[in-house]
Amino acid sequence: MSSSIGKLFVVTTFGESHGLSVGALVDGCPAGLSLSEEDIQPQLSRRRPGQSELTTARDEADTVTILSGVEDGVTIGSPIALAVNNDDKRANDYGHLTGIPRPSHADFSYKMKYGVTASSGGGRASARETIGRVSAGAIAEKVLRTRYGVEIVGWVSAVSSIKAADMTGSNFDRSTVDQTAVRCPDSEVAAEMAAAIEEAKNDGDSLGGVVTCVCRNVPTGWGEPVFDKASALLGRAMLSIPAVKGFEIGSGFAGTRMRGSEHNDLFVRKGDTIGAATNRSGGLQGGITNGEPIIFNVAFKPVASIGKVQQTVGYDGKEAKLEGKGRHDPCVLPRAVPVVESMASLVLVDLALRAGVVINER
Amino acid sequence: MSSSIGKLFVVTTFGESHGLSVGALVDGCPAGLSLSEEDIQPQLSRRRPGQSELTTARDEADTVTILSGVEDGVTIGSPIALAVNNDDKRANDYGHLTGIPRPSHADFSYKMKYGVTASSGGGRASARETIGRVSAGAIAEKVLRTRYGVEIVGWVSAVSSIKAADMTGSNFDRSTVDQTAVRCPDSEVAAEMAAAIEEAKNDGDSLGGVVTCVCRNVPTGWGEPVFDKASALLGRAMLSIPAVKGFEIGSGFAGTRMRGSEHNDLFVRKGDTIGAATNRSGGLQGGITNGEPIIFNVAFKPVASIGKVQQTVGYDGKEAKLEGKGRHDPCVLPRAVPVVESMASLVLVDLALRAGVVINER
Amino acid sequence: MSSSIGKLFVVTTFGESHGLSVGALVDGCPAGLSLSEEDIQPQLSRRRPGQSELTTARDEADTVTILSGVEDGVTIGSPIALAVNNDDKRANDYGHLTGIPRPSHADFSYKMKYGVTASSGGGRASARETIGRVSAGAIAEKVLRTRYGVEIVGWVSAVSSIKAADMTGSNFDRSTVDQTAVRCPDSEVAAEMAAAIEEAKNDGDSLGGVVTCVCRNVPTGWGEPVFDKASALLGRAMLSIPAVKGFEIGSGFAGTRMRGSEHNDLFVRKGDTIGAATNRSGGLQGGITNGEPIIFNVAFKPVASIGKVQQTVGYDGKEAKLEGKGRHDPCVLPRAVPVVESMASLVLVDLALRAGVVINER
Amino acid sequence: MSSSIGKLFVVTTFGESHGLSVGALVDGCPAGLSLSEEDIQPQLSRRRPGQSELTTARDEADTVTILSGVEDGVTIGSPIALAVNNDDKRANDYGHLTGIPRPSHADFSYKMKYGVTASSGGGRASARETIGRVSAGAIAEKVLRTRYGVEIVGWVSAVSSIKAADMTGSNFDRSTVDQTAVRCPDSEVAAEMAAAIEEAKNDGDSLGGVVTCVCRNVPTGWGEPVFDKASALLGRAMLSIPAVKGFEIGSGFAGTRMRGSEHNDLFVRKGDTIGAATNRSGGLQGGITNGEPIIFNVAFKPVASIGKVQQTVGYDGKEAKLEGKGRHDPCVLPRAVPVVESMASLVLVDLALRAGVVINER
Repeated sequence: MSSSIGKLFVVTTFGESHGLSVGALVDGCPAGLSLSEEDIQPQLSRRRPGQSELTTARDEADTVTILSGVEDGVTIGSPIALAVNNDDKRANDYGHLTGIPRPSHADFSYKMKYGVTASSGGGRASARETIGRVSAGAIAEKVLRTRYGVEIVGWVSAVSSIKAADMTGSNFDRSTVDQTAVRCPDSEVAAEMAAAIEEAKNDGDSLGGVVTCVCRNVPTGWGEPVFDKASALLGRAMLSIPAVKGFEIGSGFAGTRMRGSEHNDLFVRKGDTIGAATNRSGGLQGGITNGEPIIFNVAFKPVASIGKVQQTVGYDGKEAKLEGKGRHDPCVLPRAVPVVESMASLVLVDLALRAGVVINER
Repeated sequence: MSSSIGKLFVVTTFGESHGLSVGALVDGCPAGLSLSEEDIQPQLSRRRPGQSELTTARDEADTVTILSGVEDGVTIGSPIALAVNNDDKRANDYGHLTGIPRPSHADFSYKMKYGVTASSGGGRASARETIGRVSAGAIAEKVLRTRYGVEIVGWVSAVSSIKAADMTGSNFDRSTVDQTAVRCPDSEVAAEMAAAIEEAKNDGDSLGGVVTCVCRNVPTGWGEPVFDKASALLGRAMLSIPAVKGFEIGSGFAGTRMRGSEHNDLFVRKGDTIGAATNRSGGLQGGITNGEPIIFNVAFKPVASIGKVQQTVGYDGKEAKLEGKGRHDPCVLPRAVPVVESMASLVLVDLALRAGVVINER
Repeated sequence: MSSSIGKLFVVTTFGESHGLSVGALVDGCPAGLSLSEEDIQPQLSRRRPGQSELTTARDEADTVTILSGVEDGVTIGSPIALAVNNDDKRANDYGHLTGIPRPSHADFSYKMKYGVTASSGGGRASARETIGRVSAGAIAEKVLRTRYGVEIVGWVSAVSSIKAADMTGSNFDRSTVDQTAVRCPDSEVAAEMAAAIEEAKNDGDSLGGVVTCVCRNVPTGWGEPVFDKASALLGRAMLSIPAVKGFEIGSGFAGTRMRGSEHNDLFVRKGDTIGAATNRSGGLQGGITNGEPIIFNVAFKPVASIGKVQQTVGYDGKEAKLEGKGRHDPCVLPRAVPVVESMASLVLVDLALRAGVVINER
Repeated sequence: MSSSIGKLFVVTTFGESHGLSVGALVDGCPAGLSLSEEDIQPQLSRRRPGQSELTTARDEADTVTILSGVEDGVTIGSPIALAVNNDDKRANDYGHLTGIPRPSHADFSYKMKYGVTASSGGGRASARETIGRVSAGAIAEKVLRTRYGVEIVGWVSAVSSIKAADMTGSNFDRSTVDQTAVRCPDSEVAAEMAAAIEEAKNDGDSLGGVVTCVCRNVPTGWGEPVFDKASALLGRAMLSIPAVKGFEIGSGFAGTRMRGSEHNDLFVRKGDTIGAATNRSGGLQGGITNGEPIIFNVAFKPVASIGKVQQTVGYDGKEAKLEGKGRHDPCVLPRAVPVVESMASLVLVDLALRAGVVINER
């Protein structure tokens, strides 16, 4: 188990869906930052289940408490412990699963690895684990915003085959994204997406999709070649989110079909400095930020938990029919948006602190 | 700069194209492994420039020397230092670049970050840096092969818009891949790819593409949730390779367009145990290996170095014409195959050593 | 701030004396270990204030709660979060300190580093921080004891100039140590020590001393040269405890005055294997355990918090008289014993997990 | 094996006495530092064997080469690889040892751990491993000196029972230390020490002793509580040096016998700021530098390699006489001085880079 991320802004998450609480520990947050639970709760609430018809019926308030590291509303340089209680533990929702690993779930691989089986099946593979990420991410984001003016906005750009227009160049914020329950700022397409999700829900099935994320106002010089390039760390962070199967930055897979002469971002004068005329690089060159917005896509598979009957086998090799009874999301994409934003914040704040050192030394 | 990868099998690479040598240091290789330069040279030779008409005209032997960690042909548990001399340093190939950052290269971002400019422009962004990765990867691979029987095979599955058939289910090895200079086992498509690369070369242009990689015989239980899932670490490793813009595992982006009921890998009996009937998960569930082959794709952009004239600006903001004169690859894909395989080896051997601990504890 | 220790058994502590709670997060504890709060509480109770006349009058129950990582009384491989509430927060005990840094305390250096001042002065320099260490250490110790039979026993071997006889060769356990409030198994000397502590207490003064610790039944092969030698990591762990100013292993400083021919531990037959006839090495050679007991000493300075009036200056440079009013220990040694044992456990369990890997590879 | 030290200024050493070369890799050295082999060689020459009658007769030039990371005499931010060839490999010096582990050497514990036996016995336990430390330390020291004005001076303060006067308050530099071959600035005592070493040499025996080290002009705020306190990291670094058995900072073990009221360092006005009137803390409070000189002692045992016949047993349990034939130092203390200074540099430069981040954030 490896539950920590970051080198100087180190975040460790803890908790399963059936313990007393879930949360995170943030070690390395700079002292002197004003901070309270109110800075953290909004993103948690965008992540929580039960927020709309499109999400799971599990309804949890997910209220965060700061246990340490803040005095008189200000960080003091010490580790910040964050906890959210698990209120709605219906262990028996999963009780029927004993002996039959759920297809494309972590039940089987966890059991092979750890020998024991958590009552929820995959233990830390639970989506509830992302509460710690979002709590810590909100702190990271506050550092990025107040010190550097960095703005991070994610949205659902595709649900199944339904794609939104490319809006990576538009300058909207989270309030625009939140105008639809599906969190797609292209409102027409959002309605189509919502309908598709409803349909899948009624079928006891699930849908995947893509979250696109833009990070604006990122200074130049963030990213540590060769193994901690910003692209590498963003990719790792996103691929660590449950259900993620792909990541691309800038032109991504589509860019592989262009010629170098079409793909290269030529330089132009930008005020007192120079910058790229286009942004196929997605804000990075050689893994280091170049001052242009960071743009990336994250692929989420359709969630494995479905209501439909599945014909599978148990650990004993005997044929078995599996019918989902837990309360699951037909499509995690709307709730995944704050998780993606949070992971981007965690990566960037760590690179910011690391970059500071190098730049100071010149 | 962050030049190390791995937690227990720790690899640190060093060297630029214009210093005395490039190489790597491997700390944590188990004692008792028989090892000599002959175990390392083959992959280095598959990576070296000048190996075919499709690659750069730079011709370097890239002969590796083991400086430490091996006595009487056996590893003794100490760090293994590996060095390859830089024979062909034509610093003046880049001399004309002073003052004009190459578009979509790391020149600009390195200068912003480090203040100084390496004579080669991007310093560690040079493709020569991958020599260290491949040297260390060959050792990792030997550990994986001799102890676990793991087999890792990568190939070029797309060059620009030319796609090979899906061969992830076939059981070929590297000799099949090496039958064509382009390293695509689909021989008809390989010829098309080679023709396209030749054409781009003649145009002074470059092409991108996709490397697909399969890792067979990987035991269950490798991968450390939640941040060091095998998918997350593979993604990070691949995205740290120069020119990589995307990574997907299993069904990847295509999988986002399927329904859960289509996408789920149902379990079936497999001999004495159970396994997945299909492999849309790409060998992992919850980030932990499930015994099926690991399958992933890596997107390489068309290389930024092209011969064509580019209209750009210098650091001073003045318009400038840039015409490439260095000896570059029109398409890095064929040479990227051993790099992808090496990075996969480095990730897997580290997870193997980490998994060993947990499994012992049960 | 760097609040984590360990590479595979990673412990992160959190909390100050004036926040909601203090505790620790244990990531990497093997799955399948039976565990409850009852395994942790005994060492916490040996550490808690108010346990005897010799310690501070602060009286806190220090009851631990496991928030995650354990289901049905068994560890499941996930991070184990541990929390202890702060019941007795008398912030105003320190209210008189504003503007005057306490001599030989962390008030001044924390303020220089972090800019802010915790209400308790040094924030994480509080002895309460060690609660997290002891909680996590109890888990580490259970792994060591159940899997390897390792036994760790510490005791007070000196208070000020009062020294106990050398008992490193005796085979007593913690119950013997706990027969006196001062935790010295040499009962006659213990009485002298207690009298000296009482006297210092009455004078509003404080005393230092030495804790000696023995780790028995440690297998050979633990310790990772060259920078993570067992001696190096034990030293680091002990020197990270508040008030510690020195560490020596085996013959330590006294050994520097011997000749090599006197100091060397000759080998002799021991049953089926061989071992050292003497143990001046303290259980390690080349930083790797050799099967003999690990023996080390830890020097604690007299605590800086005293009742006596001190003539010092404030941050403004003006002369000031400082008179301690907080409730402090006249001598931390008796309560430091479980802290030393816990830190030894944390170091050893991590080396055990790391050693496992190497040994498997042969 | 764990051959790396440092978090941002990461040093990895490599090499045994019988491979092609030994050296180090420095990753994280700030760009823009002027650097050549001439900055490194002086400390290496102070460390090299054969420099005086008091050291081993092995005579090696130990000339360092920079393989990467420096262009035109300036660091470019990339990893700096440093290598020193092994010229004088007399493997047969140790050939008689097969089957008989040398008492108090690492032969036995290395064999237990790694299964194989290096031709030199303990492999990385060789004093030659410290070449990498000293090479890297010289770079660290240059960063500390040029950016912060830090001065680090170590000397031999005791050989066996012969103790120099306390000179921690004097302001001498390395040239004073080097006036005697024994590297003790107290010239009268130095002569006594030299005589004692000669006598031990003639007896085929060895002596231990103490190195004292002072680091001046260290800014406030370096050190990362709670586990990476400057005292903890210095202790770990020193205890990782071959033959070290103890470490104490400031008043150390002697301080344990004082009362708090005697031990506390009262504050006084110092120019525009305040500082400590005395320095029993040794430059640290709460593990963070307080602006006073850092002062510490390192205990070296008498080296295990002696010429005298030793009565021991072989791995087979049979009695055996062992007579040293290798060329060893009768007392490593004089050559240990640059090693201690180098390790102090490595710890401090890393804490400097880490501190930079936090201070910026206020």
